[in-house]
Amino acid sequence: MTNPTAAMLVIGDEILTGRTRDANMHFLAGELTKHGIRLSEVRIVPDIHDRIVAALNALRADYDTVFTSGGIGPTHDDITADAVAAAFGVGIDVRADARAILQDYCDRMGRELNESRLRMARIPDGATLIDNPVSAAPGFTIGNVHVMAGVPSIFQAMVAGVLPTLTGGDPLLSQNLTVLRAEGDIADSLRTLAATFPDLSMGSYPFVRDGAYGTNVVIRGTDGARIDAAMADLAALFPEAVA
Amino acid sequence: MTNPTAAMLVIGDEILTGRTRDANMHFLAGELTKHGIRLSEVRIVPDIHDRIVAALNALRADYDTVFTSGGIGPTHDDITADAVAAAFGVGIDVRADARAILQDYCDRMGRELNESRLRMARIPDGATLIDNPVSAAPGFTIGNVHVMAGVPSIFQAMVAGVLPTLTGGDPLLSQNLTVLRAEGDIADSLRTLAATFPDLSMGSYPFVRDGAYGTNVVIRGTDGARIDAAMADLAALFPEAVA
Repeated sequence: MTNPTAAMLVIGDEILTGRTRDANMHFLAGELTKHGIRLSEVRIVPDIHDRIVAALNALRADYDTVFTSGGIGPTHDDITADAVAAAFGVGIDVRADARAILQDYCDRMGRELNESRLRMARIPDGATLIDNPVSAAPGFTIGNVHVMAGVPSIFQAMVAGVLPTLTGGDPLLSQNLTVLRAEGDIADSLRTLAATFPDLSMGSYPFVRDGAYGTNVVIRGTDGARIDAAMADLAALFPEAVA
Repeated sequence: MTNPTAAMLVIGDEILTGRTRDANMHFLAGELTKHGIRLSEVRIVPDIHDRIVAALNALRADYDTVFTSGGIGPTHDDITADAVAAAFGVGIDVRADARAILQDYCDRMGRELNESRLRMARIPDGATLIDNPVSAAPGFTIGNVHVMAGVPSIFQAMVAGVLPTLTGGDPLLSQNLTVLRAEGDIADSLRTLAATFPDLSMGSYPFVRDGAYGTNVVIRGTDGARIDAAMADLAALFPEAVA
């Protein structure tokens, strides 16, 4: 279990009020797992400066990498860049390269690079830019923190740009067996199996389908051969299972 | 802004690995908002005892109420009840009333109340049970913490049972105006408007639809008349807007 660890900080009142259902966390979780990075914690906080600063400082101390989502647009409630600068104790100002990117985009789109849009060129000192192929306004990386947009299409494009720059670990593999029995009926056997494979993690997720009870058993780890062995034992325990 | 505050703790490897997209957070956020309770933070942690204990103790100290989701089933990876007992420093054991509920359900379903299922009757000392009208196995309330199942249908039923027992605040109201202009074009006006209504919160959420740029502006608060006034000013700023 020596895979690098990551955390995610989702910033935005719209998630916490129930207006918007976050989509970025689920996307990032899948991408990190494929890349061998273990998403170890997620926090969601409102658009409040001190809360962003405190959460970011806690997460960046505890995990190898932190991804943030939200709050880097042009409006008054977009306060993430300033909060990140405060968390790192560095200055923040409009930066020439970020401004040039926005100017070029505005020129192409026939828009004015007004004061609000210029806010999106405010970058904490010492950060490097993250490319935004969707709408130009860049994200940025400072220390072990990657600051990205909340709009899902932009978030996803930024993740695609950042991931290849990170050191991954052995891919986190998993296999699933669907057992057409109630979770409580298979739990005893599953516990015994889990104890004989302490290097793997086994999860069980009950469901009801057409009135019938079933359980998805997921075995996770980094050693494919070990997972194969555990899956074979699991299948032998429940020969009626549907893979 | 004197509404009661709440936090949510989502427990489960399946969320952090990307296997499952959490649905409970979005549901709870909407229900709390209607009830006048401000969801102020969400954390998602894996099925690791110490991580659950630490997160729960942090959240229950900081917020009026905490809701947890996940990890109270019959299998070896269901460790939430024990972690909650540890966080509160109390004992935990099979309790007669919870056992009776499970026995009755098993009798009706023709199932055996085996050792694994009996784990679901383990309740921390001093807790009260939360009814589970879906599959019997109860949740529980201890102190300001409500411990609920992760299966969405059960989670939702438990929230419906718990919410009426909580002191709500003034309902958190919101109105939305869809402005068919790019966020950067309206941000200056919006900032000025927000400054004249410091008692309200204004969020702006950009979108692209059929190649056209637009922004949803959401105004939130507890005073409906103030929101009406701000919405009237907003509509006057952008007469082409679609409500």
